[in-house]
Amino acid sequence: MNDTFLRACRGEKTAYTPIWIMRQAGRYLPEYQRVRGGVSFLELCKRPDLCVEVTLQPVDLFGMDAAILFSDILILMEAMGAPLDFHEGRGPVFAETVRNQAGLDRLRVPDAEAETPFVMETIRLLRRELQVPLIGFAGAPFTCATYLIEGGSSKVFWETKKMMYTAPELFHALMAKITAATIGYLQAQARAGAQALQLFDSWAGILAPVDFVEFALPYVQEILAALRQFNLPLIYFANNGATLLELSATSGADVIGLDWRVNIGEAIRRVGERAVQGNLDPFALLLPRDQLRARIGRILADAREARGHVFNLGHGVHQFTPPEQVRIAVDAVHELSQRS
Amino acid sequence: MNDTFLRACRGEKTAYTPIWIMRQAGRYLPEYQRVRGGVSFLELCKRPDLCVEVTLQPVDLFGMDAAILFSDILILMEAMGAPLDFHEGRGPVFAETVRNQAGLDRLRVPDAEAETPFVMETIRLLRRELQVPLIGFAGAPFTCATYLIEGGSSKVFWETKKMMYTAPELFHALMAKITAATIGYLQAQARAGAQALQLFDSWAGILAPVDFVEFALPYVQEILAALRQFNLPLIYFANNGATLLELSATSGADVIGLDWRVNIGEAIRRVGERAVQGNLDPFALLLPRDQLRARIGRILADAREARGHVFNLGHGVHQFTPPEQVRIAVDAVHELSQRS
Repeated sequence: MNDTFLRACRGEKTAYTPIWIMRQAGRYLPEYQRVRGGVSFLELCKRPDLCVEVTLQPVDLFGMDAAILFSDILILMEAMGAPLDFHEGRGPVFAETVRNQAGLDRLRVPDAEAETPFVMETIRLLRRELQVPLIGFAGAPFTCATYLIEGGSSKVFWETKKMMYTAPELFHALMAKITAATIGYLQAQARAGAQALQLFDSWAGILAPVDFVEFALPYVQEILAALRQFNLPLIYFANNGATLLELSATSGADVIGLDWRVNIGEAIRRVGERAVQGNLDPFALLLPRDQLRARIGRILADAREARGHVFNLGHGVHQFTPPEQVRIAVDAVHELSQRS
Repeated sequence: MNDTFLRACRGEKTAYTPIWIMRQAGRYLPEYQRVRGGVSFLELCKRPDLCVEVTLQPVDLFGMDAAILFSDILILMEAMGAPLDFHEGRGPVFAETVRNQAGLDRLRVPDAEAETPFVMETIRLLRRELQVPLIGFAGAPFTCATYLIEGGSSKVFWETKKMMYTAPELFHALMAKITAATIGYLQAQARAGAQALQLFDSWAGILAPVDFVEFALPYVQEILAALRQFNLPLIYFANNGATLLELSATSGADVIGLDWRVNIGEAIRRVGERAVQGNLDPFALLLPRDQLRARIGRILADAREARGHVFNLGHGVHQFTPPEQVRIAVDAVHELSQRS
């Protein structure tokens, strides 16, 4: 068992810097496309045999130091009672938006084992196969709330902020319900065998710091506190969250995820005694080999003072990325970070 | 003549904090909608009489401390030879993308007076009417380049970064051409009577700091240096640019624009001896009156140490904003910032 990832998360010394990449099981891989060719995205998420297969692909192909459960952050929202669909090109769609008390009342806190059994089964199956740690995950409540309120992805999040600013009690009640569901969901993942847990806050970056403190951070803190009992590394990733780093460091996470917009050395100074995860621009994977290696070397050097560093991209790998470039990146991280 | 805005830009003492808001002449105003009802957006941009009318509307309605030329950053790209269209709901579209040498060769550096006469005429007409300073503007080269390369707006800017990372010479040549055109365009605006000039870098925030330094900042510096001779306040606004603030402070701008994601007090410490402009979340205009005033008061208090502060939103005002809320905000800024 390669536990380099877990040790880096805990700030322990490691022989090299571990790497995994967000969306490593995904569309850039022909191996994934073959599996995905036969089923819809949602069907795939609910088929443990196929989830296991695609989760293992990048680990086997590139020697990633961690696997992440193949799933989607909105699976839990569906289990809460929000009918979910994925439209090609448009992304996730909730036909019934949550914009008033009636919408909120339609949501419930599910029993994770009973209502998302495929997730827990995938975790149990993966643990039998994997030689690297398995990361479980959920969306952070603010991000999940935006999808429910907007009815899908959004450019400006008008409806979300309208609710925050004009109906804050309703917004907080929605956040509380998602938080309760997320705690149950991640506790079930831990019991099923997840060895680290990550909260993805994809849209926290649209918030002014004062609003992040008021509307998002307390719920992250509540979730992470409720997971502490499992003694697993907890990772919090607020995408586009450079202005929220000091606040994110109070979330209770052991590891703070970083997007590519921030210099990793500066970020490390700002988060203090936490490990960090990141932060290569996913599109920098297009660089010619020598330049890609040089850029990776620079991130590794800038992260030298970190209490722990898990190499990652600053966002999910893009579907048009040549897999060979991912191989170059993984090898570069492993080679250039060797401690002699 | 109310020169409070110009004096704040220069870091001089003012009796109160001046305010204007991005897109203040825009769709949230029924008065604007009436004008816009008869013409397309592009036609409007090319009709000096109508541009003057809509530019004056928010100044007259709310007592803004500055006017900004009604136009669009892509007008200059059209004058460079890129056929431009605006599609309802989809935004700007360039049917011919610039992704290779042939595309670059089709672009030329226009004579601004001869090829965008309507812009200069609008400025001359406005100066006869206005009792507050008039801001001229252009897009920053990186932002303009993304539109040309992507063919319009983008979510992930794959083509832009692909060119940066795999054809950097071509990218730099495109940036150099846009820079030359922008210098001519803004110099013509200054000669026509613009009293301050702003560069909008709407998409700089997608760049890692290392790439901002390599691919965007030098061109901003070149433009601002070429405008220094006019002795006008120069404003640089890198949207979503919190991680680029120290770098933006080296742009040569007198005033650094701030979006709403960053605490203004922290931003002021980071940009040093520069004035700042910002930074209320545009959607916070939805807050109930008392809370809106409190939030504005907090920004004013946090900006007390600034070398100069021009109040603004952190992004353009949203089309669904009730105009009455804008009035509350303008009055609050004026009242709460009174120096006794």
